[in-house]
Amino acid sequence: MSTMEQPLFPDMEHSKYEFSPVAGVRLGTACAGIKKAEHRDLVLLELAAGSQVAAVFTRNAFRAAPVLLAQRHLAGNMPRYLLVNTGYANAGTGEQGLQDAEQCCRAVAKLGGCKPEEVLPFSTGVIGEPLPVERIISALPTANAALAETGWEDAAWGIMTTDTVPKLTSRTLQTGGQQITVTGMAKGAGMIRPDMATMLAYIATDAAVEQPVLQQCLQQAVAHSFNRITVDGDTSTNDACLLIATGQGDVTVPASGEVHDAFVQLVQEVCVELAKDIIKDGEGATKLINIEVTGGQNEAECFTVAYTVAHSPLVKTAFFAADPNWGRILAAVGRAEIAALELEKVRIFLDDVCIVTNGARHPAYTEEKGRQVMARNEITVRLELGRGEAQANVWTCDFSYDYVRINAEYRT
Amino acid sequence: MSTMEQPLFPDMEHSKYEFSPVAGVRLGTACAGIKKAEHRDLVLLELAAGSQVAAVFTRNAFRAAPVLLAQRHLAGNMPRYLLVNTGYANAGTGEQGLQDAEQCCRAVAKLGGCKPEEVLPFSTGVIGEPLPVERIISALPTANAALAETGWEDAAWGIMTTDTVPKLTSRTLQTGGQQITVTGMAKGAGMIRPDMATMLAYIATDAAVEQPVLQQCLQQAVAHSFNRITVDGDTSTNDACLLIATGQGDVTVPASGEVHDAFVQLVQEVCVELAKDIIKDGEGATKLINIEVTGGQNEAECFTVAYTVAHSPLVKTAFFAADPNWGRILAAVGRAEIAALELEKVRIFLDDVCIVTNGARHPAYTEEKGRQVMARNEITVRLELGRGEAQANVWTCDFSYDYVRINAEYRT
Repeated sequence: MSTMEQPLFPDMEHSKYEFSPVAGVRLGTACAGIKKAEHRDLVLLELAAGSQVAAVFTRNAFRAAPVLLAQRHLAGNMPRYLLVNTGYANAGTGEQGLQDAEQCCRAVAKLGGCKPEEVLPFSTGVIGEPLPVERIISALPTANAALAETGWEDAAWGIMTTDTVPKLTSRTLQTGGQQITVTGMAKGAGMIRPDMATMLAYIATDAAVEQPVLQQCLQQAVAHSFNRITVDGDTSTNDACLLIATGQGDVTVPASGEVHDAFVQLVQEVCVELAKDIIKDGEGATKLINIEVTGGQNEAECFTVAYTVAHSPLVKTAFFAADPNWGRILAAVGRAEIAALELEKVRIFLDDVCIVTNGARHPAYTEEKGRQVMARNEITVRLELGRGEAQANVWTCDFSYDYVRINAEYRT
Repeated sequence: MSTMEQPLFPDMEHSKYEFSPVAGVRLGTACAGIKKAEHRDLVLLELAAGSQVAAVFTRNAFRAAPVLLAQRHLAGNMPRYLLVNTGYANAGTGEQGLQDAEQCCRAVAKLGGCKPEEVLPFSTGVIGEPLPVERIISALPTANAALAETGWEDAAWGIMTTDTVPKLTSRTLQTGGQQITVTGMAKGAGMIRPDMATMLAYIATDAAVEQPVLQQCLQQAVAHSFNRITVDGDTSTNDACLLIATGQGDVTVPASGEVHDAFVQLVQEVCVELAKDIIKDGEGATKLINIEVTGGQNEAECFTVAYTVAHSPLVKTAFFAADPNWGRILAAVGRAEIAALELEKVRIFLDDVCIVTNGARHPAYTEEKGRQVMARNEITVRLELGRGEAQANVWTCDFSYDYVRINAEYRT
């Protein structure tokens, strides 16, 4: 069975065309030949003076050099430039990796007339190989000359690695006759189980927002989006997600109240859309699966069950085969590490079809009903634990031949 | 790339021919047509009167009906018969599943002239479908008529599902001019991350051993064998592992001392060999990978790191591709949930080749050295954490196209 026979996600094709520029953010790209020739692999973002930036990074213990340096720079400065390269992750590169990232920041600072500490570096690609600093620095003037507020689409292409489509989206909000724009882009297709952030995501707004408010907004949005997705359970060394507020628009977002809440909601919507786009474009993915756990004693145990099912290779290959082999879902729920789960109280649904109740197959369930749901592109698995009021959800994808192909061939 | 191009494990082909019968254990098989026609799918084991039996079962919260019934029967009786069917797991089958398992036990008891409580049922196969009791009971006389001490090889074939080779092995021990024989068989290829037991394993000895001593021996052996293997992280609802002591041989194993320790070692060797055979025959597996973690603060954190690496789909596909993409190993170690791990102290080896030291690639490492190791069938990944004296190991296999094929096609 080839995934080519599977239907694609029709909404992903055009998403790259719909975005609104954000006043105060200019983006430029270049083909630096970092790993492949004629490949857009370098992206520069310029932020207007006075922009506030919130960020979350990977919790992988082995954070990459650019992550360590970005965290250091953010501690004392508001950034004016973000530099992103693909091809090499600059992770597992030791002291040399830090020096390489610093050299890139100095080169950007010289070009942009700011301090090196006002530049944040981001890298994504193969772990363990040294960063080709010369190639990056040589291409910087080209990226700098290309800087434009309309540069989002090129930039969304420029940060891609094994992604097959760019992830870019916008939302606007009217408040008191004025408008807030939020635009975001993300990359990621494999090594996706973000922990405080996804692989790379950049979200910007023209609203004015103070940094602590912005940081809190980002953390809430990430908790409900990027931190609820998984392709393969592997958390990257380079995850980073930034929220930028340039303050170049008409609106100031206060620390609380109606406008604040609407703004948080807007940012969260952008993050959820980007997060789901990452899963739809997951390596080899043919289905978007929403694992929804309800009736838990607390949110933590709902996540434990959701991730156990989401990471089960047997569940994931059954979805690839569009096979309603629900025994695998049941077995995965049963091995989730939560105490005293009672099978008799658990109910399992595929979309609206109840499969398991009272510890056995639902009397009205038929294989045909299961097959109808499994044929869909987007499926919700609902797991009712019957032991409380808490709930949580996780988005994941299926496991196909193409996942193996992509990851067996990635470096060759 | 087809796995057919990969070399197989030469030692697996002949292992099925090497075994010693165990006095007091007779085995018979039959083709009951449970799921496929002309397929050996029913196995009966008869144990001599006075045999002692130790057992461990799955810790999956959703234990199958035969597991629940076997535990109930063991609580008050020493078994005289074990009945194993493949095709259907009789899990997720509710009250009906328990009644079905009881009916099978009654049929065996009638045939063998014992109490139904002296029969233990075991099932393996698809979860959630009702057990075809009539077909099983109709074939029982055939299996009963075939009972023989030499029946181990047929039985090892008879308990297989997606396994491609039977797993059967023997060890003998000379003590004071007398001999102890230990023979074991196991099945399992997918849904393999046993928790207190593997899918199904039956080990028997002719020594006389009291039940508490036998139980302790089994638990120690399992902790060092079946509980250290993983194919896909999925723990089955039907896992069971039995150790039988018939007492029909010459030796009585005491509760402690030299003979006791040698016996425990012997059982453990049998379990380790069967456990490794399961991994070598893991669904789609082309490599046996030993993940060895040393220098941990305690054994638990060593297991956490080992399992995180062993379950990483990115690590497993890299092994399939024979690609020394060690950055994926590093990233997996880094996301293992242990506190305050320092990259600078971690060393990573592929067999004897040091890849990572001081937070970066070892200066003497070359891609060629990595490729040489990755070309092997059996590879040890050694992870030195540099924070203590504890150690642990886990055996796993790679992740191939065939894993996806086998599990996308399993029910069709």
